Amino acid sequence: MKLGNLDLPSDVCRSVGDVLARIGDKWSVLVIVLLKDGSKRFSELRREIGTVSQKMLTATLRGLERDGYVKRTVTPTIPPRVDYELTDLGRDVMVPLNAMANWALSRREQVEAARKAYDKRNKR
Amino acid sequence: MKLGNLDLPSDVCRSVGDVLARIGDKWSVLVIVLLKDGSKRFSELRREIGTVSQKMLTATLRGLERDGYVKRTVTPTIPPRVDYELTDLGRDVMVPLNAMANWALSRREQVEAARKAYDKRNKR
Repeated sequence: MKLGNLDLPSDVCRSVGDVLARIGDKWSVLVIVLLKDGSKRFSELRREIGTVSQKMLTATLRGLERDGYVKRTVTPTIPPRVDYELTDLGRDVMVPLNAMANWALSRREQVEAARKAYDKRNKR
Repeated sequence: MKLGNLDLPSDVCRSVGDVLARIGDKWSVLVIVLLKDGSKRFSELRREIGTVSQKMLTATLRGLERDGYVKRTVTPTIPPRVDYELTDLGRDVMVPLNAMANWALSRREQVEAARKAYDKRNKR
């Protein structure tokens, strides 16, 4: 299978797809962007994102930690304090992510117009 | 909220997140890549991806069509023939998508190692 300029076996494509699935996820992108300037607590992330549920934010952070983008530090105070920060890999992914985000930003009105036209065509 | 180098209101961030959610989706990426060199029929896409269910591929193509990346053409033969091809927007998204795919390709072993280590730490 061809991915970009590369000819790749399909297991490599799937593995690249798995990496993309995580960093292309809407909440993951927002979390990575929010952690860009330093560590944050769970409650800060939740407040700054605004529309995310506690359950969804927990799942997103766990996924990012599992894939190696985010480090979770627990300070054993009462109640325990939990901080999240980007790892080197997490900072590294900011580069292609920024390119993608800038593209998405410049094309978002085009995508929104396409959605509206599609929904109008397919309305019963 | 800050996205990349930009200071953005959170509704714009969400709208960018919506764009990213589609093009970051694993199956969407594979379909865009497969359509790069020309139009393909549903059955060809399904065969070339291999592991995707009919239902999932249908949903993916519908999402890509709705967002304006893919054009669907029905030829009224018996049975009808359905072809899919990239639009200008779909070809345009290949540029940041390639950058992201190359990053994912170069880091996939690191991500896989992080996953294994996480699963080992969190095994009961």
